[in-house]
Parts: sequence; C-alpha cells; structure tokens
Amino acid sequence: MSEEVKPESVSLYPASAAATPEQETVCIFGTGDLGRSLGQRLLQSGYRLVYGSRRPHSCGPVPPGAQVMSHEVAAQSASLVFVCVQREHYDFLETLAPQLNGKVLVDVSNNLKKNMYPEANAEYLQKLIPGAHVVKAFNTLSAWALQNGPSDANRQVYLCGNNPEAKQAVAVISTKLGFTVQDRGSLSAARELEDFPLQLFPEWRLPMRLTIGLTAFFFFYLLTRDVIYAYVDEGRDISFRIMMSLANKVFPSVSLILLSLCYLPGVIAGFFQLYRGTKYKRFPDWLDRWMLCRKQLGLIALALASLHVLYTLLIPISFFFILFHFQIKSNKTSPFDTTMAWRTDSYYAIGALGFGLYLLLGISSLPSVSNALSWREFSFIQSKLGYLTLFFCTFHTYLYGWDRFLYISQYKWYTPPGYMLCLVVPSLVLVLRLLLLLPCVDKSLSRIRQGWERTDPENDSKKSLLA
Amino acid sequence: MSEEVKPESVSLYPASAAATPEQETVCIFGTGDLGRSLGQRLLQSGYRLVYGSRRPHSCGPVPPGAQVMSHEVAAQSASLVFVCVQREHYDFLETLAPQLNGKVLVDVSNNLKKNMYPEANAEYLQKLIPGAHVVKAFNTLSAWALQNGPSDANRQVYLCGNNPEAKQAVAVISTKLGFTVQDRGSLSAARELEDFPLQLFPEWRLPMRLTIGLTAFFFFYLLTRDVIYAYVDEGRDISFRIMMSLANKVFPSVSLILLSLCYLPGVIAGFFQLYRGTKYKRFPDWLDRWMLCRKQLGLIALALASLHVLYTLLIPISFFFILFHFQIKSNKTSPFDTTMAWRTDSYYAIGALGFGLYLLLGISSLPSVSNALSWREFSFIQSKLGYLTLFFCTFHTYLYGWDRFLYISQYKWYTPPGYMLCLVVPSLVLVLRLLLLLPCVDKSLSRIRQGWERTDPENDSKKSLLA
Amino acid sequence: MSEEVKPESVSLYPASAAATPEQETVCIFGTGDLGRSLGQRLLQSGYRLVYGSRRPHSCGPVPPGAQVMSHEVAAQSASLVFVCVQREHYDFLETLAPQLNGKVLVDVSNNLKKNMYPEANAEYLQKLIPGAHVVKAFNTLSAWALQNGPSDANRQVYLCGNNPEAKQAVAVISTKLGFTVQDRGSLSAARELEDFPLQLFPEWRLPMRLTIGLTAFFFFYLLTRDVIYAYVDEGRDISFRIMMSLANKVFPSVSLILLSLCYLPGVIAGFFQLYRGTKYKRFPDWLDRWMLCRKQLGLIALALASLHVLYTLLIPISFFFILFHFQIKSNKTSPFDTTMAWRTDSYYAIGALGFGLYLLLGISSLPSVSNALSWREFSFIQSKLGYLTLFFCTFHTYLYGWDRFLYISQYKWYTPPGYMLCLVVPSLVLVLRLLLLLPCVDKSLSRIRQGWERTDPENDSKKSLLA
Repeated sequence: MSEEVKPESVSLYPASAAATPEQETVCIFGTGDLGRSLGQRLLQSGYRLVYGSRRPHSCGPVPPGAQVMSHEVAAQSASLVFVCVQREHYDFLETLAPQLNGKVLVDVSNNLKKNMYPEANAEYLQKLIPGAHVVKAFNTLSAWALQNGPSDANRQVYLCGNNPEAKQAVAVISTKLGFTVQDRGSLSAARELEDFPLQLFPEWRLPMRLTIGLTAFFFFYLLTRDVIYAYVDEGRDISFRIMMSLANKVFPSVSLILLSLCYLPGVIAGFFQLYRGTKYKRFPDWLDRWMLCRKQLGLIALALASLHVLYTLLIPISFFFILFHFQIKSNKTSPFDTTMAWRTDSYYAIGALGFGLYLLLGISSLPSVSNALSWREFSFIQSKLGYLTLFFCTFHTYLYGWDRFLYISQYKWYTPPGYMLCLVVPSLVLVLRLLLLLPCVDKSLSRIRQGWERTDPENDSKKSLLA
Repeated sequence: MSEEVKPESVSLYPASAAATPEQETVCIFGTGDLGRSLGQRLLQSGYRLVYGSRRPHSCGPVPPGAQVMSHEVAAQSASLVFVCVQREHYDFLETLAPQLNGKVLVDVSNNLKKNMYPEANAEYLQKLIPGAHVVKAFNTLSAWALQNGPSDANRQVYLCGNNPEAKQAVAVISTKLGFTVQDRGSLSAARELEDFPLQLFPEWRLPMRLTIGLTAFFFFYLLTRDVIYAYVDEGRDISFRIMMSLANKVFPSVSLILLSLCYLPGVIAGFFQLYRGTKYKRFPDWLDRWMLCRKQLGLIALALASLHVLYTLLIPISFFFILFHFQIKSNKTSPFDTTMAWRTDSYYAIGALGFGLYLLLGISSLPSVSNALSWREFSFIQSKLGYLTLFFCTFHTYLYGWDRFLYISQYKWYTPPGYMLCLVVPSLVLVLRLLLLLPCVDKSLSRIRQGWERTDPENDSKKSLLA
Repeated sequence: MSEEVKPESVSLYPASAAATPEQETVCIFGTGDLGRSLGQRLLQSGYRLVYGSRRPHSCGPVPPGAQVMSHEVAAQSASLVFVCVQREHYDFLETLAPQLNGKVLVDVSNNLKKNMYPEANAEYLQKLIPGAHVVKAFNTLSAWALQNGPSDANRQVYLCGNNPEAKQAVAVISTKLGFTVQDRGSLSAARELEDFPLQLFPEWRLPMRLTIGLTAFFFFYLLTRDVIYAYVDEGRDISFRIMMSLANKVFPSVSLILLSLCYLPGVIAGFFQLYRGTKYKRFPDWLDRWMLCRKQLGLIALALASLHVLYTLLIPISFFFILFHFQIKSNKTSPFDTTMAWRTDSYYAIGALGFGLYLLLGISSLPSVSNALSWREFSFIQSKLGYLTLFFCTFHTYLYGWDRFLYISQYKWYTPPGYMLCLVVPSLVLVLRLLLLLPCVDKSLSRIRQGWERTDPENDSKKSLLA
C-alpha cells in the first residue's frame, strides 16, 4: 500500500494501520469472481493483499488497495496463498514449487459434478507441491457470501488439512473475516468437502423416501378397499373419488404416522439409556440417523396435514357443485341425536386445535424463530407441545373411527380401514411415552441424563476415560 | 504454541501470528463441554490458550493447539481466567487465591433451578477469592453457541462485575469472539443473569394470563346466554354447540380485544405526551410493561383469529355431516333481498381481508422478516396496517351485529350478546386514535416527538441536564 | 484510559490491551444517542475513545472508559473522527478546520425528508473543511444497530468518499465492529446514501403498481361482463356479487398473471443469451429491473392466491347463510355423470396442490429459510418447483374453463371471459420454457452459462478484456 499513499494522506497511516499494527500480507492466485470477492473482504478486514496473475497488467479489475504481481513475486510476499484457480489450470503451479515451499496453500476449488477426477482437488494440489501445507477451505461458500460476509446460514467454513499450524492459520483468518470454523480433520476429508456444494437436500432424502413409500401403500390400499371394492362388489364406478376423498384419506394417515415417527426415536433412546444405565454410550447408528431427520419428518407431516385441512374444506364445496347438477335423494331419516352431534363437533374441533398446534410447531422450527428461543423454550415447544399435538391428532382419528371399530361391515375383504392402520404407531408412541413418565422410571431416567451412571464393573474403565 | 511448532512450519509464524502480533494468552479452568467449546472458539479467534486441570495428563481431549497444565501454572500464565467449573467444586479455587490475585475471573456457571444457593455463583466466587476481579458472563450461551459462534439470536453476552477494567477486558474478548456485549452493572446483578437461562417465555406470561382470563370470561358468559338459557328457557339441550359454535364465538371476541389492546397503549402514550408537553419524561411502569408485550398480544390474537377462520370454515361441514343424518325442515321462506345478500357477503369479504392483513402483520413480525425491514418500513406495517386491520375486524364484527343491536329479543336475561361486549375496547381505541389524527392535535404531537418541549418553568432544569 | 486505571488493576493491562497492542484512538463529535451507541460499540471492539463536546463537563453520560474533551483537543488525539452532530450545527466545525486538516471525517448524519438541503450533508461538510477526507458511512444504521452490533439485516455499511485510504480506514473499522462494507464510490453518492433511510419499500413499488393496474382492469372488465350485463340484459340486480364472487374471480386472475410474470424474464433472458451467444453482455435495463422484482411479484401473487382460497371456502358458507332465508329452486336435474365429477374434483385437487406449492415457495423465500439453503437448493425450489406451481395453477384454470371455451354463450358482448384473458401470459411462459428445454437448445444454453462464448470477430476484443 505504501507505494500508493499520497503525501497529504500521511496522517491516515495510524487510521488504516493501527487496526493491525504491521498488517499481514495475504496472497491470492487468480482474479476471477471468487478471487475478487475474497480479496475485497480480506482488505476490509485489514489485511494487505497481493494478487498473483499470469498477466499482471491485463488481468481485469481488482479491488482498490490490492496489488497485482506475477505469481512468483506474489508467492514470495506472503506466507499464505489462496488458490482461486480452476483445477484444470493447477498444473502451472508445479513450476512455483520452490516459491510455495513451506507456505500455506488454501484450496477453495469446487467441481461441477461428483467424481469428476480420481482424487480431490486439494489432494491433487498437495501432490503437485509436496513442500506446501495445503488446506481445503471456503469451497462451500459462494463468492457472494465471501464478499458480503457471513449471513445467518453460510457462516460455516469447513476446513481440512494435514498440518495443524496451517489449519490454525486459516482458522484465524476465517474468524477475522467473520466466519465460524469447523475442522474436518486431515486432507483426506477434502473429497467430502468438495461434494458439499453439490448435494441437494441430503437430510431430506430419507424422510422423503419414507413419505413416498407410505403414501403409495395407503393409496393402493384404500384404492382397493374403496374404489375397486365398490366396483367389483356393487358395480358402482366411483373412480372420481380418487382426486379428493381418497387423497383426503391418504394425506392424514401418512401425516399422522410421520408425526409419530418424530417422537418414536426419542422414546426408544429413553429406553436405551434406562437399559444401559448411562448416557455416555453412543446410540446405534440407525437411531442417530433417525433422530437427525426428525425435523424433516415433522415438516413433511405438517405439509400433508395442511393439505388434509384444505381438502376437507374443499370437499363439501365440490360436493355442493355436483349438488347443482342433479337432485340428491337422501332417504335415510335417522332422528337427530345429541351424541352424534357431540361426536362430530368434537371431532372437528379437536382436529382444528391439533392443526393449530401443528402450525405452531412448524413456525417454531423456522430458523429465525428457533434462534430466538432459549434452549429450554425450544425443547418445551418441541417435546411438550409436540406430544400434545400427537395426542390431539390421534384422538381426532379415534373420534373419526368412533364405534365403527366394531362394525364387521367395515372390514371389507377382511381388511381393516385405513384409519385403523395409521393409528397403530401413534398409539404405540403415546403408550411408551406414558411408561417413561411413570414416577419411578422418570426419576432414574432424569438422573441418568444428568450424568449419573449405574456402576457396574465393565463400566468403570469407560468412566475413567471420560472424566 | 512455540513449543509445538515443527521446524518445517517456521514460515507459518507470520500467518498465524500476525493476526495478533504477540498473541494474548487466556486461561480456562475445566475441560468439560463448555470449557472445550469456549477454548476452540478462543483459539480460532487467535488467542493462545492454556487449560487448568486437576489431572493435566488424563483430562480428556482438548482442542488442538491448547496446552493443559496444573491450575497453579495455568493461572500464572494468563491475566484472564474463565472458570468453567461447576459451583460445587469452586472451593478448591480458594487454594489458588495467591495466583489468582488481581486477575480477571470470568464466572460462566449456571444452576439447575432458581434459588439453589443463598448467593449467586459469581458472588460466591468473589467471596472465595477477594483479590480477583470476578466478572459474570457467557452463562446465557450454550456450549453449542460458544463453539459455532453467535447466530442471529444468541449473540448477546450479558456481563456484570464490580471492576470496570475487568468488564472492559471481557467485553473486548466477547466482541472478538463475535458476540455483542450488554453491561448489566455491578456483580450484584449476577443472580439475575444466572436466572436468565431458567426462564420460560417470561415476556409471554402477562399476555397469556390475560388471554386465559378473557377466554374464560367469554366462555362462561356465552355458555350461560346460549346453552343454559336454551335449556332453562326452552328446554332444548344444545350442549354440543360448545365444541364449535360457542368456541367460534369466544375465539374472535378475545382475538379482537387482544388486537385492540396492542394499540391502546400507543394511544395512551400519545395522550400522555400531549398532556406533559414533552417526550423526555418516562411513562408510568404499567404502561412500559404493557408496551413491551404488544408483540405477544398481537401474535396470540392472530392465533385465535386463525382458529376462528378454521372453525367458521368447518362449521358448515360438520353441519353438512349432520344434515345427512336427518332431514332438516327450514320452514321460514323470507323473500330474497339484495340488502341481506350485500350484508352477508361484505361481512365475509371484510372478515377475509382483515384476516389477510392480520397474517401480514404476523409474518412481518418474524425475526428474520422484521430484521430485513428498515425502521420506517417496520413502523409503517405495524402502525398503519395494524390500525387498518383493527378497523376491518371491528367493522366485520359490526356487520355481524348489523341491526340486531336494536332487537330486544337479543338481550336474553337482560345481558348484551358477546359481540357487543367485545366491540367496546376496539371502538374506543379507534375513536381515540381518530382524535390524535385531528390536524391540530397531530401537529403538536409530532412536534413533541421531534424533541420540542412545551417550555414551562419546572421543565427548564430537566432540559439543561438532557442537552 | 491510563489515567483512570487503579493501582491494583495493573495486571489488567495485557488483558484489555493485548487485543490491539497499541490501541487506536478514535474520536466522536457529539454525545447524543447515536454518538453514545457508536462509542460503546467502539470501546467493546478494543478502540480507545475520545468524545469531543461543546461542554466537556456537562454533556450527559458517556459510556464508561471513554473520555470527554473539547472539540479541539479531541480532534488532535485521533486521526479518524465520527461526526455525530446534526447538520444544522455543522458550521461550528469550520473553526476546527486546522485541527481536522488531513483527518478522516465520517459523516453519519441523516435528514428528516428528501431534498431538505441543496447538497448532501457529507458534501456540505467537505466544503466546510476542504482539508479533511470526508467519508459518508453508517447513516443507514440505527443507534440500536450500532449499539447491539449487526443483526442479520442491518449488517451492511454503505460508504462513499473521494479518498481511497480514508474509505479503507473506515472499512476496516466497520469490519472490526462486525459490519460488512459496500463501497458506493465517490462522495457524490452521499445524497443517494442519505436518501436510503427515507425510502419506503422501494423495491415493492413497481410490482404494487402493476398489481393495482391489473386488479383494476379485471375488476371493471368482470363488473361489466357479469353485473352490468346481467342488469342490462336480464334486468337482474346481482350487484352484491361484487363482494365475493367477483372479487374471487379478480384475485386468482391477477395472481396467476403475476406468478407467470415472475418466470417470464428468466425465459426472455435465456433467449437473449442464446441470441447473443454469450453470458457476458449485460441485459437491457428494463429486463434487469424486472428480474430484481421477481420475488416481490411472487409474494404478491401468493397473497392474492391465499385470498382466492379463503374466498372460495367462504362463498358456499355465505351461500349457505342465504339458503336459510329463502327456498332455492334448482329445477335443472341433469343426470349425475362421472366425467363431471372427475372434472370438478381434479379441478379442486389440482388447485389445492398448486396452492400448497405456492406456500412452499413463499416459505422458502423467508430470509431465514433461504439463508439456510445452499445456492443449488434455493434455485431448485425457485425454478423447478416454481414452474411446477405455475403449471398446476394454469392447469387448474384450464380445468375451470373446461369445454366452455367453445360455448358461444360465454362470449357476452363478444368479450372472452376473464379466465381466458388471464391464461394468455402463463401459457406463453410455459410454452417458451418448453422450447428452452428442447435438448439441442438446452445444451447450447447451458454451455453459454458455463462461460463458453460463440466466437465471432467483434467478440474477440471483449473476451481479451474479460479474461
């Protein structure tokens, strides 16, 4: 910078400098979008910046305050070099091996699709310049995020590398730029990091598969029981029911099951801890994976529940519509009985309240809302209110069934109606949960969760390690 | 760190060091979750880190780059010590009094429930080591937040202590870690800070109480007028109405009142300022408290309004359902009149629009949305649109009443129907608001809000202090 | 600070100091709200702070750790001065010209309304003290944001000025305070920056105008076709329909058009790139402006769609209500046909699904949610799901029309019904989009978007500049 300072601005030195008395110089190879954005942010964080370029004099605009030099000179001027070059052009770096020896090379590159190359870009870079300390970092961030600094979501900088000091150096810079660092271990993790930006809703995959499976099952099950049965048995063609009434049976069933599946793993975990008498043993992988996708399960359940509500509200209208095309002849005149009215009304009322709670859960899981809650408040909503929702919805379904559980006529072709099937899991979850709430059980469980361990010989070894 | 540097990484020095030319060393007592998370973040922010542990050689994993020593040695190596130890084990610190003399001790501890101990942990710590400068801080943050850095919500670090320099030192570190500091005064505030994490929706308590009270009142009021009256007077049992129709009268009434209560304090404040002729006098406490829970009031009102909509939409369906169990005999055949149609339709239309605005208000009060608005935009939505919503909903209710205000038959047992009761407050608010909008009033009010003061003798003293 | 340190706290030095070994001193003129908030934040970021005030000894409270001096002394002690004084009082600064010569003056002032003064405050300040380097900055932030540090939204600090070092110095400070900097060029941009806080939803203006225009058009168009036609032609007064049925035709029509207008610019852009054979040429301004308000268009469309749903659900109820005031005589008894039922049901079902997707799009555009998505995920939702939504809603409308396109009776007064009009744009967009998806077209387009350029002579020049 000293080169460019105009005489009258001498007094500026302390201002721009004092922030970091002798400014550290950082080097960036490549003046593309990413290089420029990163450079701008580095300058604003008080670093002195040098660009390395093939044609230092015709390399397009660089942020004011930065200098552009040949790769050789630039490399010597700094101990940390960001490589903002596409992998195809890495080879030229080999010629810089002597200048880059012992320096920290930050590989920020990404690929267009997975497994484009035999080894990760960062590992390839390390191979080219064995003397340098390659660190993979920043590749999960967009040029936009690098320029405008971290926003709520893309604040995480994942890094990996073989040299701890090199990683530490990159970590400090990242933190000065305002990002938070997560160390993913040795350079062999680079491949994994390079795949991150290519993933599409990884954590939604399992829940979606489950949803599709359940939906398909219930659809064909109900199709057989309602439409096909009516056709075969009574020769009536009610296929049009598929669009509304049938869908409106599938959605709530799947929704209820998914909701209960959000709470099942928690209950199972409780029993695990009770059985093992400690909270310090890891859960089996399948349980961990399950627990990690509870939020997604819940949100899909909410979406289906909303569709259920919308359909329920639309059906009478579409019905209304039909009503106008032909006179309906309802010849059954059962006397009006209050019980029936009570049942119907509470069925709808509880459904509505359940849905309200459902929405509340959904809203509270919006990032900005859940951030605004203390941990205690969040867990209160997600567990206490969650179970209340589950109870309401289950009860709502039971009211739907009412006494029809008993009517043999319901069991067409000896199959139980759909709402019975979808009641199994939720009922199970609620029962198990109640078991865990029994005073005696609850007490020992909470003791375990506060760190107490049932002492039995084969445990002591572990404990001494943990203490 | 110098101890661990490998020869080939000498060139790294500037990289990791220049960030803070001579790195400050910070000490952490305790290597538990909190200690580790805090330590990792400190290292990433460029601090040199030393752990103090009872068994320096078997104390479990610490973040790479940190050293573990005995408490004595660790304490001497740094001028600021984070005490990440549970209060039960504080006593051992007494033995370190000489080493800790004159140092800054940061107490980050929390308790499992309120009033577990006679005095706050931080005050207890100060008692143990009178020579140290105890600062209470970070206790409101989870280990997670400490490790991953501040997210939108848990960015606030509350601190309190008796020594200003000590607090300043902690404030600087917190800011370097990316948190924002709020000074809560002397160490006597520690008790308050330690209670923060134990609170459950403190700001929701008042509004919830109010809601429950109003709901209970309207429920029993309407229960008497509708159900019991029908039973006593006409011997009809319409108890089943409780689930839907009755609830659907309670929800909107309470919702409307709560909504109007959001805007009442603002109006009152306006009159206060007019009367006092200055904006520099504090409002009475009850008004401040009221103003602070406006958002909560509004959100509860929104929730009830949504239930009202859902119920309104469901009632005809449940009705429909009943319709199928018995023939309804409607023998009243009033001729179709357009006025009636106009009334009904505008009643529903305005209700729908009101609800739409309601939702808009709700959405705009989501943290992430309101953050994205400039202050001017936010106040525009919350005041202008808010009053519009209030007006729509009130008008909607008036349309519901229509000319029935006049029918004596409506006043069963000489009590007014529910919708009349719930119209009182909103109407009042709207009238008062209109008064404030009168040109003359509005002018002087806005002048006051721009800082102008009606000059009367007993005010001058104050002003000179404020200028 | 050194003055105030108490003997026993000597050991504190390293703690508070090491963060920035020789702390930079910053000066603030003015001890108002803004000055205090800014000062507190500066102290917490490790700066030494000096206030300049007219009455150093009676200037009200300043944050602990800061000193208050006369303007002259304060100005000399720092090389960077924040001017937190209202423009009306700038003139006194003229007297300080000698002390401020060569210093960085940060103008943070705002005006109450646009064009209050002939030139921007910052330019006025520069005129008063030609020797200083005036930088306009921080004026878009509230005192609240300055004190509590950046939150998700108000993190952006816009700055402009004529001296690059001065801007750099302010940029570094802003970044240390946790804000992200955007350089808006020379001081002549100050006027623009000073207008920012006065704007009210600037990016919503164009979409709102468009919405109002379309709504007005459809309203009067349908008013004529339905209400007036019925009155003139059949002498029936169905004016009451305006509130519900008419509105419920206007909302969906406008909503559908707005939604399609979200996707039209993208398609046009695609054709532009195909035609030009490069992505490096800027689009015409109107297209850029259009693309920038896509989000707003979409959200308004969503709002109207929600109203459409609400109205659709309410109409039968209001109808129900009327039903009770007079016997309806429906004398048409067409036989029940499955096709009709299929049509009706799928019409409603697809509408419901479309609305569901609509909501999903809306939710995913909440700041906190879209932040949580990777760029790839966001674009997947907004483009793939977006087009699916558009398709569903368009199909929903076609189903509404069904075969009525053919009935001449539909063309009252030789005008097509509203739903036909509103189908034009969406159909167009879908067709164009399909064209772009043709394998051959798609291939060359994606190549262009990956940076490939069709080489034709007059292009080469440009490329060499860009490389």
